[in-house]
Amino acid sequence: MFRNQYDTDVTTWSPQGRLFQVEYAMEAVKQGSACVGLCSRTHAVLAAVNKPASELSSYQRKVFRVAEHAGVALAGLTADGRVLSRFLRNECINHSFVYEAPLPISRLALKLADKAQVCTQRSWKRPYGVGLLVAGLDESGAHLYYNCPSGNYFEYQAFAIGSRSQAAKTFLERRFQGYKDYTPEQLIKDALSAIKETLQGEKLSSSNCTVAIVGRKDDGTIEPFEMIGAARIQELIDSMEVAEEAPEEAPAEASSMQEEERGSEDAAAPMDI
Amino acid sequence: MFRNQYDTDVTTWSPQGRLFQVEYAMEAVKQGSACVGLCSRTHAVLAAVNKPASELSSYQRKVFRVAEHAGVALAGLTADGRVLSRFLRNECINHSFVYEAPLPISRLALKLADKAQVCTQRSWKRPYGVGLLVAGLDESGAHLYYNCPSGNYFEYQAFAIGSRSQAAKTFLERRFQGYKDYTPEQLIKDALSAIKETLQGEKLSSSNCTVAIVGRKDDGTIEPFEMIGAARIQELIDSMEVAEEAPEEAPAEASSMQEEERGSEDAAAPMDI
Amino acid sequence: MFRNQYDTDVTTWSPQGRLFQVEYAMEAVKQGSACVGLCSRTHAVLAAVNKPASELSSYQRKVFRVAEHAGVALAGLTADGRVLSRFLRNECINHSFVYEAPLPISRLALKLADKAQVCTQRSWKRPYGVGLLVAGLDESGAHLYYNCPSGNYFEYQAFAIGSRSQAAKTFLERRFQGYKDYTPEQLIKDALSAIKETLQGEKLSSSNCTVAIVGRKDDGTIEPFEMIGAARIQELIDSMEVAEEAPEEAPAEASSMQEEERGSEDAAAPMDI
Amino acid sequence: MFRNQYDTDVTTWSPQGRLFQVEYAMEAVKQGSACVGLCSRTHAVLAAVNKPASELSSYQRKVFRVAEHAGVALAGLTADGRVLSRFLRNECINHSFVYEAPLPISRLALKLADKAQVCTQRSWKRPYGVGLLVAGLDESGAHLYYNCPSGNYFEYQAFAIGSRSQAAKTFLERRFQGYKDYTPEQLIKDALSAIKETLQGEKLSSSNCTVAIVGRKDDGTIEPFEMIGAARIQELIDSMEVAEEAPEEAPAEASSMQEEERGSEDAAAPMDI
Amino acid sequence: MFRNQYDTDVTTWSPQGRLFQVEYAMEAVKQGSACVGLCSRTHAVLAAVNKPASELSSYQRKVFRVAEHAGVALAGLTADGRVLSRFLRNECINHSFVYEAPLPISRLALKLADKAQVCTQRSWKRPYGVGLLVAGLDESGAHLYYNCPSGNYFEYQAFAIGSRSQAAKTFLERRFQGYKDYTPEQLIKDALSAIKETLQGEKLSSSNCTVAIVGRKDDGTIEPFEMIGAARIQELIDSMEVAEEAPEEAPAEASSMQEEERGSEDAAAPMDI
Amino acid sequence: MFRNQYDTDVTTWSPQGRLFQVEYAMEAVKQGSACVGLCSRTHAVLAAVNKPASELSSYQRKVFRVAEHAGVALAGLTADGRVLSRFLRNECINHSFVYEAPLPISRLALKLADKAQVCTQRSWKRPYGVGLLVAGLDESGAHLYYNCPSGNYFEYQAFAIGSRSQAAKTFLERRFQGYKDYTPEQLIKDALSAIKETLQGEKLSSSNCTVAIVGRKDDGTIEPFEMIGAARIQELIDSMEVAEEAPEEAPAEASSMQEEERGSEDAAAPMDI
Amino acid sequence: MFRNQYDTDVTTWSPQGRLFQVEYAMEAVKQGSACVGLCSRTHAVLAAVNKPASELSSYQRKVFRVAEHAGVALAGLTADGRVLSRFLRNECINHSFVYEAPLPISRLALKLADKAQVCTQRSWKRPYGVGLLVAGLDESGAHLYYNCPSGNYFEYQAFAIGSRSQAAKTFLERRFQGYKDYTPEQLIKDALSAIKETLQGEKLSSSNCTVAIVGRKDDGTIEPFEMIGAARIQELIDSMEVAEEAPEEAPAEASSMQEEERGSEDAAAPMDI
Repeated sequence: MFRNQYDTDVTTWSPQGRLFQVEYAMEAVKQGSACVGLCSRTHAVLAAVNKPASELSSYQRKVFRVAEHAGVALAGLTADGRVLSRFLRNECINHSFVYEAPLPISRLALKLADKAQVCTQRSWKRPYGVGLLVAGLDESGAHLYYNCPSGNYFEYQAFAIGSRSQAAKTFLERRFQGYKDYTPEQLIKDALSAIKETLQGEKLSSSNCTVAIVGRKDDGTIEPFEMIGAARIQELIDSMEVAEEAPEEAPAEASSMQEEERGSEDAAAPMDI
Repeated sequence: MFRNQYDTDVTTWSPQGRLFQVEYAMEAVKQGSACVGLCSRTHAVLAAVNKPASELSSYQRKVFRVAEHAGVALAGLTADGRVLSRFLRNECINHSFVYEAPLPISRLALKLADKAQVCTQRSWKRPYGVGLLVAGLDESGAHLYYNCPSGNYFEYQAFAIGSRSQAAKTFLERRFQGYKDYTPEQLIKDALSAIKETLQGEKLSSSNCTVAIVGRKDDGTIEPFEMIGAARIQELIDSMEVAEEAPEEAPAEASSMQEEERGSEDAAAPMDI
Repeated sequence: MFRNQYDTDVTTWSPQGRLFQVEYAMEAVKQGSACVGLCSRTHAVLAAVNKPASELSSYQRKVFRVAEHAGVALAGLTADGRVLSRFLRNECINHSFVYEAPLPISRLALKLADKAQVCTQRSWKRPYGVGLLVAGLDESGAHLYYNCPSGNYFEYQAFAIGSRSQAAKTFLERRFQGYKDYTPEQLIKDALSAIKETLQGEKLSSSNCTVAIVGRKDDGTIEPFEMIGAARIQELIDSMEVAEEAPEEAPAEASSMQEEERGSEDAAAPMDI
Repeated sequence: MFRNQYDTDVTTWSPQGRLFQVEYAMEAVKQGSACVGLCSRTHAVLAAVNKPASELSSYQRKVFRVAEHAGVALAGLTADGRVLSRFLRNECINHSFVYEAPLPISRLALKLADKAQVCTQRSWKRPYGVGLLVAGLDESGAHLYYNCPSGNYFEYQAFAIGSRSQAAKTFLERRFQGYKDYTPEQLIKDALSAIKETLQGEKLSSSNCTVAIVGRKDDGTIEPFEMIGAARIQELIDSMEVAEEAPEEAPAEASSMQEEERGSEDAAAPMDI
Repeated sequence: MFRNQYDTDVTTWSPQGRLFQVEYAMEAVKQGSACVGLCSRTHAVLAAVNKPASELSSYQRKVFRVAEHAGVALAGLTADGRVLSRFLRNECINHSFVYEAPLPISRLALKLADKAQVCTQRSWKRPYGVGLLVAGLDESGAHLYYNCPSGNYFEYQAFAIGSRSQAAKTFLERRFQGYKDYTPEQLIKDALSAIKETLQGEKLSSSNCTVAIVGRKDDGTIEPFEMIGAARIQELIDSMEVAEEAPEEAPAEASSMQEEERGSEDAAAPMDI
Repeated sequence: MFRNQYDTDVTTWSPQGRLFQVEYAMEAVKQGSACVGLCSRTHAVLAAVNKPASELSSYQRKVFRVAEHAGVALAGLTADGRVLSRFLRNECINHSFVYEAPLPISRLALKLADKAQVCTQRSWKRPYGVGLLVAGLDESGAHLYYNCPSGNYFEYQAFAIGSRSQAAKTFLERRFQGYKDYTPEQLIKDALSAIKETLQGEKLSSSNCTVAIVGRKDDGTIEPFEMIGAARIQELIDSMEVAEEAPEEAPAEASSMQEEERGSEDAAAPMDI
Repeated sequence: MFRNQYDTDVTTWSPQGRLFQVEYAMEAVKQGSACVGLCSRTHAVLAAVNKPASELSSYQRKVFRVAEHAGVALAGLTADGRVLSRFLRNECINHSFVYEAPLPISRLALKLADKAQVCTQRSWKRPYGVGLLVAGLDESGAHLYYNCPSGNYFEYQAFAIGSRSQAAKTFLERRFQGYKDYTPEQLIKDALSAIKETLQGEKLSSSNCTVAIVGRKDDGTIEPFEMIGAARIQELIDSMEVAEEAPEEAPAEASSMQEEERGSEDAAAPMDI
């Protein structure tokens, strides 16, 4: 692929009206380990693959709480994501302090997008190299947003980002119409199934994934954003495996997909696993 | 197409007196999904295609309210457009606060153009990559302006920008002489027809377009800028389809046009759909 | 035409002592639609071609009032010109406020030239890409100046700038000796004739040109700078056409000139029509 | 290996979404002399090779105390590491002063990672060229983190970085499961064994390694971070040698590993031995 | 002429210890229309060619008064020269205000030279592209200085700069010994003759040259710097023509010189005529 | 030797994790004339070659006193070294003023190293091109440090830097074990011998070397850092020559070493002799 | 001579540890007209060639008084030298004001060197292109220093810099041993002889050289730095010519030297004669 002199500076337009540096930064999102998000009317779930850098290390956290009513999952440069998470945390605290009410999720995603946009227009910075799934609860119910390095953001019912996320997206597309009315448990199970799609044959267990949930109970009280315990996750995984004995052709489809993705896999950035 | 060293820096003139970087930024406008604007003496209508990033996501909003009497529709980098919309919102609020009167639409377009011009003359920024249709109402009636990345702006009776907007412009050119005296409903119908021209065979429905209107009623009271409800839009689309059974040759013309635009379509920037 | 490495930075001299970037910026003036200026002892007239960006749009304004006693017409990047017009407006207001007298036209042109010079000596800006005809009235009578992007300015009796301005200049050169004593009506007629020369066969009408005048009446009271009404212009055009039946060879000369200019026309910058 | 224009500026993304300058900075860590870290529930141990620049000089210190309850070992540019150690020392002092409690180790590693991240996003600085093992004790027990130049950090049970650290990592991977319950002496012995793996045949003695420990005694009192005396180290080495007479095949494995690393060894940066 | 990479930045030395950018700026002086200066013990005269940009325009002023006792004539970028003239005017006013005495001419030239030097040592500016003849009167009599873009300045008895100034210099070199004791009228006549040498066959008249004089009368009162009236100049030119009937061979010599200069003439910068 | 694009900017890492600009700056140290340092338990000695720039000039000083208890010798860019010496002098004075005690030598070397590190991480400065031997006395006895341009520093018992320093280092390596217990006179004699090794056949005399000493007398009083008088040095040289009649093979070894160094000698930077 | 990419930026080291831009700036010193300095125990003399830019101009001054007890002569970019002379003048005044004693000459040279060093380490300035001979008198007698663009400075008994200074240096080297005890008249005569060596056959006269002297009379009173009158110089030149009839072979030697220097002469920078 030949690309000429328009792709080394974020302030340089190509003759076709593209900002290559911003597009390249979006490639970084595809290099990170996968994460997924789903939401029903009352609950939002985030899940991420736990991929330790080596046998000796713990995994790097990819799911962060930013307030009682909201959290993020990220794929891409974790260091950039950490900086943005802290930014969101501050915005939530400030809003609470001033208005004595939680920051609506759409506003949260907007503030994040505006922060990302700034880095796409100045010559002395680079665009952030991280995509964030922002999930949370506000007066209008549960919401899920995807914020990308270009400063754009989209509301989703369910979405997956990161390495091998295509398989998870295919899974979610088949089922997302019903999500509006799912129970929290159903959401978590589908999140686990979507994560499993990205693992390429590796076995899903409570140790290689993180799941978090936020929502509102039937009585209207808020269930704060929190990670689900490993025991509970393993229990759900076990129950899913029992149920999964019939469908045999799905893995075949998935493995063909795995193959076509292996090319980009080889070029994976070592700094962001 | 060979272009030499004059096109990588916004502060560099070409020997022919052109600023290539500004022209390239204007290409970005053509990459965005289409939007159209029309205005009569008393009403202005904005309409945009809703194009979701994927099956799972909602579409990104392209039409924004900036004040009670004005709104914008945008094509190009949505992130840049969002920043400019907020700028306009602040200008409207400040003007109202100081003068206790709404900011005239010509002044609004001028302020936007001046903000864009600054980015075409400094080495450490890039020109904005977004075109805006500014529609609104002031004492002299309804107005429609098109602000482009170069810092220029033009008043229009009707206009379309973005990907495949040529078909819509052709449609509008055939009919714009009468717009001065159109009723709001007629404006909306023509906006929908123009949007339909850009869809390339895709079916127009209330879910893949947004329409907004602002105007003054016969009794002189203002109808604030607001999005038209989906039900009302679908109703209008249905009524239009009934009426549209006769003309058969227009689609043929449109499809030939679609073909000649497909080249630039292939190069569409993925970050801005 | 081969030009080497001395033409990409405004702070770089060529071995022959030229600043190519400044010269290139002056090319932008030739790309804009034409405007002309003329002045007698007591009146100054500015006229510009109104060239709409498309059938749907109004034309962009090229003639601006900067004070009661002065105005400008511009060719080149309209966005740059707008910024400079506002600068002039501020200078006039400040001078009136401090000295309780209008700013002399020579001082106005000088301030504009100095502002332009700054952009030819700093590495982080580009020269302005617009030429301005500054016309106005002060105690010493009516004056016309041409300010160009290099920071130079010249006083003229009559001048034309912009695309195809050579034909207008040729027209003015044949007649300018008498301008000192022209009546306002005579000035306007010659301005219209000069504008006509630049239209290349297109018919002159009150809708495709703007004319403005400033002057002092015989009783010494000032006639403020203002645009002449379309009706009055059309009336003058009609009267000129009646008178113009004899001379048949001038168009021939003009069309040959048009041909030699077509080359540069093809390279016209799309952003500045 | 051919890499094109995307690898000279830290603010430039490659088309694959990688920041080559950050990856190159991580290569500097591999050039430094090795260091290892281990931790049990109550104690953390850091050890480093002492490699004098010449026969005439003492070695450069690679293990630093940053507070009573924490210390770091570093590999890479020692000068960069020294600057970061002082930063950590200040953070610890400030936290103690404000909260009257020691800074938790996870917060310490986070602050370090955020400082590193900043240098990966600005055009006028370079990423730090040093990796740090951060070891310490807080209310949740002993912890070991690895902070790398990209701004990422990972928690480890045991880890080794620097030149020829692969042999040490292989050693640690065989044994790390038991480390949670090791006594301090066992930790130190394994640290010495790991260091020995990196020495490539050179004999381990108390003069060519530094070992430091921090932990909590059984009675709950803290054992401050301190270097272990040379006499005590020699004593432990001697006791290890007695025990090591049986296993003969490990050196063979190690030497083969040494060979495959020699390539990168030849390119070792002379400034950072 | 091949010149390598040392000539695009004013802060870059060539291997031979030259600053090419400064030398190139000095070329700009040769592109401007000519001006000459002469001084006797008590009077200094400046003269410049008036070269209108077109038939329609007045000429650009090249001779400026900076104080009652001093003025400048310039060749090169007029816009740069105007900025420097204003600087000199301010320096004169400030000195008068503080010391209640006029600024000595040597000090004036020194201040100008220091201002020019600054632009030869900073990377973000370019050297000024204008040469100035500074003429004035102080307690030690009349003086003439030449300030060039490099920041150097020289005292002269008589000098000429600008396009085709070589002919004028040759004329002045034949006669300058006597200038010390010339009367004002004699100085003006020689200035006119020198200017004539630069005109290349064009006829000298009061309309194509400007002459200014400053001096001290025999009674010690100062004759302020002022332009000489056109009538007086024409009178002198007429009287010179009567006297000039004999010498016929000088034009021949001049025309040969004209030829050898035509080469550089073709490369004349259009922005500075 | 081919090195590609990674070696022109101090903020650019090479793919192997090296900072070439810092390594190149360290080459400058090898270009300077040689200097040596030695220390016993109680005394430290610095010696440098005096190499006049020409027959007409005195030599440039390479040994500087920075406080009563400390001094430096330098090799490389003397101008950079002078700036750093003044920095050290200020640090010593400030510390004395605040703490009423001399600055420990290890702290002095650390401060110097940190100042050097800053210049290796900013794009707008270059690394210092000078190496410094810092010698001094504090409560823990006499110390000798070598600070290099990379921001690293090492403690030495004895060391030599600069042009042809390898011969001196070889000499010192044979003898340094005993230095701990040397008398001041013995230290000075060995310093003179080491200097002699670097002279390549040139005769050592009191005029071509400088020797300085600092130490503590047996009664605990400090002997301030001072240059040793020329008479005393000549006396020691004479006594050494008497003793040196036996060993004949050392010069042979030295001359072979001289040959292998001549290559780099030819490339010696003329600005730093 | 091929030199690669390391020589365009003053902050870039070459692989051999050289700063080419600083070396190139030192070439500028060789391009300037020559000047010499000599000093005895009590007097210092500076002399320079007066080389007018043209027949019409006076020469540019190259010898400046900076205080009653000190002065400088310079070769290279006169504009840079003027800026540095003023700096020295300010330093002398400030020192006198604060300490009520003249600034020692060694301190004066040091301050100048430090100012020059700064310009060798910043990316946005260039090194000064001028060498200065600083001569003066303080309590320790008369001194002569040479300050070069690299920030180095050297004390000399006698020295010559600038174009063709090699001949003068050869002359001074033959005689400098006796200078300590020369009378002022003897110093001046040798200065004139040295200047004569640089003139390449041109006749030495009082009009083409400047000589200045500073010293202390036998009674201890200071003879302030002042230029020697032309009459006195001519008198000395005449007396020297009478004495010089015998030595015939020196010119031959000089002319051969002239030839070998002609190469660099051709490349002489025109801006600095």
